[in-house]
Amino acid sequence: MHVQYILEIIGTGLFAVSGSLAANEKSKPDWFGVTFIGFITSIGGGSLRDILLGAYPLNWIKDINFLYAVLTGILLASIFYKSFLKLRKSFFIFETLGIAMFTIIGCEKAMSYGVNPMIAAIMGMFSAVMGGVLRDVLTNEIPVIFRKEIYATACLAGAFLYLALDYLCVERNLNLLLAMSFIFVIRIIAVKYNISLPKFRKEDVLNEKIKI
Amino acid sequence: MHVQYILEIIGTGLFAVSGSLAANEKSKPDWFGVTFIGFITSIGGGSLRDILLGAYPLNWIKDINFLYAVLTGILLASIFYKSFLKLRKSFFIFETLGIAMFTIIGCEKAMSYGVNPMIAAIMGMFSAVMGGVLRDVLTNEIPVIFRKEIYATACLAGAFLYLALDYLCVERNLNLLLAMSFIFVIRIIAVKYNISLPKFRKEDVLNEKIKI
Amino acid sequence: MHVQYILEIIGTGLFAVSGSLAANEKSKPDWFGVTFIGFITSIGGGSLRDILLGAYPLNWIKDINFLYAVLTGILLASIFYKSFLKLRKSFFIFETLGIAMFTIIGCEKAMSYGVNPMIAAIMGMFSAVMGGVLRDVLTNEIPVIFRKEIYATACLAGAFLYLALDYLCVERNLNLLLAMSFIFVIRIIAVKYNISLPKFRKEDVLNEKIKI
Repeated sequence: MHVQYILEIIGTGLFAVSGSLAANEKSKPDWFGVTFIGFITSIGGGSLRDILLGAYPLNWIKDINFLYAVLTGILLASIFYKSFLKLRKSFFIFETLGIAMFTIIGCEKAMSYGVNPMIAAIMGMFSAVMGGVLRDVLTNEIPVIFRKEIYATACLAGAFLYLALDYLCVERNLNLLLAMSFIFVIRIIAVKYNISLPKFRKEDVLNEKIKI
Repeated sequence: MHVQYILEIIGTGLFAVSGSLAANEKSKPDWFGVTFIGFITSIGGGSLRDILLGAYPLNWIKDINFLYAVLTGILLASIFYKSFLKLRKSFFIFETLGIAMFTIIGCEKAMSYGVNPMIAAIMGMFSAVMGGVLRDVLTNEIPVIFRKEIYATACLAGAFLYLALDYLCVERNLNLLLAMSFIFVIRIIAVKYNISLPKFRKEDVLNEKIKI
Repeated sequence: MHVQYILEIIGTGLFAVSGSLAANEKSKPDWFGVTFIGFITSIGGGSLRDILLGAYPLNWIKDINFLYAVLTGILLASIFYKSFLKLRKSFFIFETLGIAMFTIIGCEKAMSYGVNPMIAAIMGMFSAVMGGVLRDVLTNEIPVIFRKEIYATACLAGAFLYLALDYLCVERNLNLLLAMSFIFVIRIIAVKYNISLPKFRKEDVLNEKIKI
């Protein structure tokens, strides 16, 4: 089997783990709720990308292994719940790898449909973040990408790096490695040093501070 | 005309009745709001299923009778509002029949697109519950399937029963009857005896109780 | 270039301006959040219409100018933020023109897919209002169309007028002008005189008043 395929399946399982952990923290739903939300979190981003591109059939519909990966992820999240919470730091690193991979794979898939590179970068970012957006909408929260924004911006930046290097004829596997590392490093640094993008309107923020 | 078609049209109308009653209870919107939410509740689940499958054109877009059924349902909900509220119990039974029917029809439709039976069962469940999920997202509520969870789980179980009996070559009409009755009975019993699925994490629930 | 195409691009940019202003008022997100929400607001309605119709590829995916229009709109909203807020009245007029145009163009596009005129009118209305609905769902608010309802109803009414005049063989450009003016005038009057549709259940509203 192809390495990329195996990585995609593993990434889907990782997303299911983090989706079900997040679902459980928020509203303590039952098994069905956690499974449903974990499922949507894992396959939501890629599905939205494919629906927007008209790229039928969707991955998880044509290949049952994606569903198995999701169910395995949720089962592992249930069994090793406490360990996952303890190993949150290590888990965060795996999840960031998953996000980086989904971005670049999504970007590549969009390019194969002949879209403009800017659109392909957006599609890559959508693949990585829209599952989480759907999860947050379903659990009635403001999507996390509007709060921890560097997450989605890192995906966009990495997708653009990938496209630039591809344009410069960098070999594909090297390019994948470079662009994924780029996303990975930006996100880790942003979280470690609590870096965020500037607000849209600085004065408003200042005014608010003065009011308080 | 085919019996199944007539049942589908009636089921769509029933969903519009329950969608508009639910919309009105929640936020007392005006006529437009109730009609819009009733419409999304009725056609949302089947539309999502067809978009995921790439099954174009969507039912309600190709066949205007679905729209007439929705509008009739909303009109009836307005005229017989008090009667519907009084007859809530009888109405609940009709609605459960509608849910059971949508599940099995959705599952069959997905199978006709050659998907894996597990995916077909998910598609059947989506057909029955996603209209309600969209209604709840639009009215800014936690989707009811995360609270009254046995609802969606019953749909999944019924879809699996249908697929199992189909695999065992049970005659289609008998199978439809058996699987729909199964969903119907599970839901009625679950509501009557207030049965719900176990929580994802039991200890957390216990801890919370101790804290309080 | 075709006049309609230029108008569509301008309309998309206007939607991005109003989307990013609305996003900023609500939750003071950062640059990424405002851009993301402005983008969804502009292209959400048309994308949903095209996904429902199966009209691939989506406009903004096949034609990069839509993305440029969105980004220009967001940039202008940032630079001329205070002017836009001061000129809110004039801006409201441009936005209403945009809504009217999106409705009729959406309705025409649906007709070109051979759907029933009632479905085409719904698709026209979806094109104009669903971007705003998605924006409100993402920012965790009750969609504005359930509160300022005359907005969507005006779109529906204008779409029906367009279809009626088209049926009566009124020349297309004249028809576009008439139907768009109709939507424009209804919305302006409704906002000026604070007109809204009747509530779905009058007695309930009365009871509530008595209770208070």
